[in-house]
Amino acid sequence: METLPTTPPVTLEELYSAWQKAAFDELNELFAETHPSDIARFLESLPAKQRVIVWKSTEFDRAEVLSYMHDAERAELIHRMGAEEVAAATTEMDTDDAVDLLQTLSEQRVEQVLMAMDEEHRQQLSKVLFYDEDSAGGLMNVDTLTVRGDLSIKVILRYLRRHAELPDKTDALFVVDAENRYRGMLFLADIVTNNPDLLVEDIMSTQITPIPVNMPSQSVALLFEQHGFISVPVIDQDSTLLGRITVDDVLDVIREESDRTLLHRAGLDEEDDMFAPTLSTTWARAVWLGINLLTAFLASYVIGQFENALSQIVALAVLMPIVASMGGIAGTQTLTVMIRGIALGKVSSANAFWLLKKEVAVGVLNGLIWAVVVGIVAMIWFSSIKLGLVIGAAIVINLFFAAFSGMLLPLILKRLSIDPALAGGVILTTVTDVIGFAAFLGLATLWLL
Amino acid sequence: METLPTTPPVTLEELYSAWQKAAFDELNELFAETHPSDIARFLESLPAKQRVIVWKSTEFDRAEVLSYMHDAERAELIHRMGAEEVAAATTEMDTDDAVDLLQTLSEQRVEQVLMAMDEEHRQQLSKVLFYDEDSAGGLMNVDTLTVRGDLSIKVILRYLRRHAELPDKTDALFVVDAENRYRGMLFLADIVTNNPDLLVEDIMSTQITPIPVNMPSQSVALLFEQHGFISVPVIDQDSTLLGRITVDDVLDVIREESDRTLLHRAGLDEEDDMFAPTLSTTWARAVWLGINLLTAFLASYVIGQFENALSQIVALAVLMPIVASMGGIAGTQTLTVMIRGIALGKVSSANAFWLLKKEVAVGVLNGLIWAVVVGIVAMIWFSSIKLGLVIGAAIVINLFFAAFSGMLLPLILKRLSIDPALAGGVILTTVTDVIGFAAFLGLATLWLL
Repeated sequence: METLPTTPPVTLEELYSAWQKAAFDELNELFAETHPSDIARFLESLPAKQRVIVWKSTEFDRAEVLSYMHDAERAELIHRMGAEEVAAATTEMDTDDAVDLLQTLSEQRVEQVLMAMDEEHRQQLSKVLFYDEDSAGGLMNVDTLTVRGDLSIKVILRYLRRHAELPDKTDALFVVDAENRYRGMLFLADIVTNNPDLLVEDIMSTQITPIPVNMPSQSVALLFEQHGFISVPVIDQDSTLLGRITVDDVLDVIREESDRTLLHRAGLDEEDDMFAPTLSTTWARAVWLGINLLTAFLASYVIGQFENALSQIVALAVLMPIVASMGGIAGTQTLTVMIRGIALGKVSSANAFWLLKKEVAVGVLNGLIWAVVVGIVAMIWFSSIKLGLVIGAAIVINLFFAAFSGMLLPLILKRLSIDPALAGGVILTTVTDVIGFAAFLGLATLWLL
Repeated sequence: METLPTTPPVTLEELYSAWQKAAFDELNELFAETHPSDIARFLESLPAKQRVIVWKSTEFDRAEVLSYMHDAERAELIHRMGAEEVAAATTEMDTDDAVDLLQTLSEQRVEQVLMAMDEEHRQQLSKVLFYDEDSAGGLMNVDTLTVRGDLSIKVILRYLRRHAELPDKTDALFVVDAENRYRGMLFLADIVTNNPDLLVEDIMSTQITPIPVNMPSQSVALLFEQHGFISVPVIDQDSTLLGRITVDDVLDVIREESDRTLLHRAGLDEEDDMFAPTLSTTWARAVWLGINLLTAFLASYVIGQFENALSQIVALAVLMPIVASMGGIAGTQTLTVMIRGIALGKVSSANAFWLLKKEVAVGVLNGLIWAVVVGIVAMIWFSSIKLGLVIGAAIVINLFFAAFSGMLLPLILKRLSIDPALAGGVILTTVTDVIGFAAFLGLATLWLL
């Protein structure tokens, strides 16, 4: 029996301890038993400078490890490699991985790397480099095996047995006509279960609709999820077969999409390298802090309009963050549910109005519940019934607008082609801060002074 | 040429407009041309009550559509179906989908449904129901096709051609010994490319380590991502082959995991149904608002300790939200990067200290940058150099602690088996609010009064 994956042969800790001793020979021995994806993970979790030192001082399958690394961490390493070295690594990769890597380089650098390759690989890569990274073209592999429809299965089997190797993750061959136009898929499962005297066109499947080369990768991912595909043909507008997309590439798309949403909520992007040098991280994050500072100043400005009330009743300063905070939380809940609903394709103009009514109703109901609680606490704390009524009313008002903007913001941003996950949160809390402070201090000015 | 998927035959809008006219005949016609996953999506995006009405009034493949629906929305529908109806639907599903559905029902209900099934399906499902939903056992299908190692490929091909159909997404048959213990995988790709006189054991692959039935599903997903598997055998501790996990189930795991992280950040869970009745949504969200209210009161209490300073200098009330807000944003950035790093397995005891130093350095540097900016603005706005110095110092202090807690909180929560995505944000902003208000108002009391 082989070792079970629950006890992997080499742990990240073992690699670290060898690295901390600067024992590169030991690292080399460990690397020999480590899966390339784990070597990639180890390299990524080193401080950026150390990463380069380890890279230069040890031996392992460069192409494999690079293909498992994330863009930001990889860019740093490739930067230090010669064009020949990059060319050698990329020719060993699947086309889609190689293209993914090349697309992170400058145009000039790509030229140099392509020139350092043999003719065949250069042509293959140039063809695919042309397509957008986030489209079906950028995801596809060009290692498709094609057959004609008028051949018998027997002939196909004879051919396959002579050529011995199929591209990785082949679940089907692609049937094309004389002009290389896509006609159908010949599944291996059908080859082995059917009478070998039948023709390819008798048993080929036309169930799977080929994917146009310019389809956005998120739509590709959705198709794979809905239909459980293993591989799907990619065609151009003339139905010419260009390549195929396999499910493992789609796993990456889904993982990256989820990463992006998570990071965007905190104003970070996928390139943010946990292990990058301190200064570059500081700068990357400073921008977002600056944007938020502007919105915080806006809230301060609103508060400043009520200096008179604040100077007379100090309880207002004590309680005002509660109103803003409740609005922010309630709005974020609506916003999150909306962002997810939009991503899953469940929100459309047909049900948007119904959803708006529901979210606003939820906001007002929760506003009423917590208005009572906060109102009573405020009354007791500051011995003022009127203060309790003011804060209760402000909470209801703020949660109403929180639901309203949490619901409409992502729809508006989406229409403007801005990622709601990135901008939604800042704008939303600006709204809930401004309305929260204005409602509370405004009502206080009217009723309490 | 078939229609391309960019222009799907039936749109969500068409379904809606038929529904709005209550034209169930029209809906039935449209359903006949709609992919089950799109019908599922349409049903999910209807108000909960309407969903039941449409379900009862229309015709479509119940089993298929149910297997594409999310747990919460589906539970509602199953609740209204008779045990026989549920039994009929689940016997048509893949084992893993059927189990997934049954696991959302009460024990008593499961009993009823199992009793309404034929013996064969009951036995098959009972075996798998036993395993945790979030483990390899809960993900697996039991429709494996097994062969012995001493047969020739020719014999295998003859058998396959006679039995004509392979389970969905079969990329390999499983080789077992006389006791049904797993020995290797026989890939279809190897069947079609090798000499048919060879024996199964000559060409079977032992590269893929089988997955133990109790492996958590997140680890299963990570293995698939790293190795690009299509299907993997699942075994018990005696190496007995129990079933197989296919990549499409793993897509679901990854999607659900990413959903969970996103929703947890807003105190929501996967069961939160955008289209549920208003009252149940109100209640589900109220809990999270209540928890946040407690932390907001804590912040108010801290502010209340400085009533004296606030009553003398109204500028403090105007500026104090800025200090708290900058800390919250900076801390959230660190927290987000950490949550992702932990999920990707890039953070361990070996590099935690190094990461802490870096995050704190980033926090202090950003603190200094924005302390200068905010300090100058405050000086000019309120014509007070001292006030500028106080707010600058408070910002540096708060961003220092924000980095510290953003870094350590997820590690501590993880050790306590609490999801950092769920609890991290609340605790973090409590820390940054309390420290922000205390530092700013405390320093003001010392230096300005």
